[in-house]
Amino acid sequence: MRVIVTGAGGFVGSVLSARLGAIVPDAQLIGIDVTPGSAVTIAGDLADPALLSAAVGEGVDLLIHLAAVPGGLAERDPALSRRINLDATLSLFDAAAAAAGGRGRPRVVYASTVAVLGDDLPDMVTDDTPPCPTMTYGAHKLMVEVALADLHRRERVEAISLRLPGIVARPPASSGLKSAFLSDVFHAHVQRRAFTMPVSAQGRTWLMSVDRCVDNILHAAFADLSTAPATRAITLPALHVRIGELIEALEARDPARAGAIAFRPDAALERTFAAHPRLTTPSAEALGFSRDADLDDLIDRVLARIAPAS
Amino acid sequence: MRVIVTGAGGFVGSVLSARLGAIVPDAQLIGIDVTPGSAVTIAGDLADPALLSAAVGEGVDLLIHLAAVPGGLAERDPALSRRINLDATLSLFDAAAAAAGGRGRPRVVYASTVAVLGDDLPDMVTDDTPPCPTMTYGAHKLMVEVALADLHRRERVEAISLRLPGIVARPPASSGLKSAFLSDVFHAHVQRRAFTMPVSAQGRTWLMSVDRCVDNILHAAFADLSTAPATRAITLPALHVRIGELIEALEARDPARAGAIAFRPDAALERTFAAHPRLTTPSAEALGFSRDADLDDLIDRVLARIAPAS
Repeated sequence: MRVIVTGAGGFVGSVLSARLGAIVPDAQLIGIDVTPGSAVTIAGDLADPALLSAAVGEGVDLLIHLAAVPGGLAERDPALSRRINLDATLSLFDAAAAAAGGRGRPRVVYASTVAVLGDDLPDMVTDDTPPCPTMTYGAHKLMVEVALADLHRRERVEAISLRLPGIVARPPASSGLKSAFLSDVFHAHVQRRAFTMPVSAQGRTWLMSVDRCVDNILHAAFADLSTAPATRAITLPALHVRIGELIEALEARDPARAGAIAFRPDAALERTFAAHPRLTTPSAEALGFSRDADLDDLIDRVLARIAPAS
Repeated sequence: MRVIVTGAGGFVGSVLSARLGAIVPDAQLIGIDVTPGSAVTIAGDLADPALLSAAVGEGVDLLIHLAAVPGGLAERDPALSRRINLDATLSLFDAAAAAAGGRGRPRVVYASTVAVLGDDLPDMVTDDTPPCPTMTYGAHKLMVEVALADLHRRERVEAISLRLPGIVARPPASSGLKSAFLSDVFHAHVQRRAFTMPVSAQGRTWLMSVDRCVDNILHAAFADLSTAPATRAITLPALHVRIGELIEALEARDPARAGAIAFRPDAALERTFAAHPRLTTPSAEALGFSRDADLDDLIDRVLARIAPAS
């Protein structure tokens, strides 16, 4: 079995690669990332045809595509986002389909995002809420979802797009993601630093621990997905967390830190990341995808990863 | 004023170009088409960067993008569809945005299609029906809608995507469109030939005369569209025509032809082109777009164009 993971050196990719190595020990794992690293077997630019042919040339059974120009950077440089998040991604999928050979259709798991839904959301987001992205990042992710569903319809690949909520806790200040504050608040907690949240305590956001995210990606890689909808796009279940409730739960674990987190809401960040309405995801649940059990469960997993008990 | 029309030599483009010449006689009209012709000032491949720079280099105030690889051909050759219907189209829009210079934002009118909605439609299609294309043609059109809405959001262009229903009557056997039979039946009527409809008399389809289509494109080019939705995509009003009713109306105009039209339904064509449910288009109507008044009105216009009174 030949497995390609793009973004293998990244936040989600490195956790995923370690898990994959344990689950399919006999598989040939090809980790691609722009930056060399431990899970990275091919370092380079995803838009480089030589990289593509080296990775996919011998065929692929499973492609997990995590690599992307993140949202903040995509917004500043839409041409770069087009080159990587759209053009190179479509070429990667086409190459995987073309290289399948006698192996049958490769499965493609694509890391999409709730950003495809946009900012102007109804009181309850459902599987039928029409996407209307309000960032270039989300626009390109949605375009790729559409292309991938078409490649699936043509029976060239077996595809699933997972719309990820905010995944925590990313490494501090690493990512160019506008939602970095949702991770940074955990690091500030562990390091006992003061921190200013750029959204209000009343804000609500959709969160998932990186471990649960990887559970879901692995489920997407190996489960029966024959009943997935024709869009092949699944909004993952997520915890609907009130920002103030998250801060209170962190403070309850370290009472000396009461008041260490201040709030200074930025209207744009509030609108995009802290105005999430309720979310119902029956398609995902019927297929066996899941969220963290509750906020304490999410915090346990996040802290276990960024501050292992010493 | 500098106006670019792509597909200017085509079915809709040639009618549009003639009307534009009358409406804005002082404008510089640049007609682009892959085939030389009377309304065509630049003949060539839309994916050719030299053509793009010749067309857009001096700036553009209005871009009407009609050119596309049609649905049947796109389905047979998705790589060609990607090259023209997706990549070259996105580059055209980016070039128009970049060339705006001191002219202010160019307006972009994009000929999209009801094919973005797909086959699996609810009993009533509304402006909120989520698109789920079931042909590569519709997938690429939807992807471009999303990209164009993002370019509009970034204030680089002022964009509108018009989702066109079946436009009649196209020239016979010219187009590679799977829906060609909806036009060919009019030509058979005029030429008093027998004809076999590949859909059932009970089938229903969304139709618009080419003249009304051009009315709507011109409206999109010059009207105030500031209240258009954030998707910048408008499903145009269309007549919801029962195929049998169309045949009866044609026969009523030439009773000697009773029975000249046979029916031999093809399941795939029926599903895609003759299973259209009711359609409500409040966004389009609020913005001033319109359909043919009724079936007789549509037939009058179609016959006036393909069989002018001699």
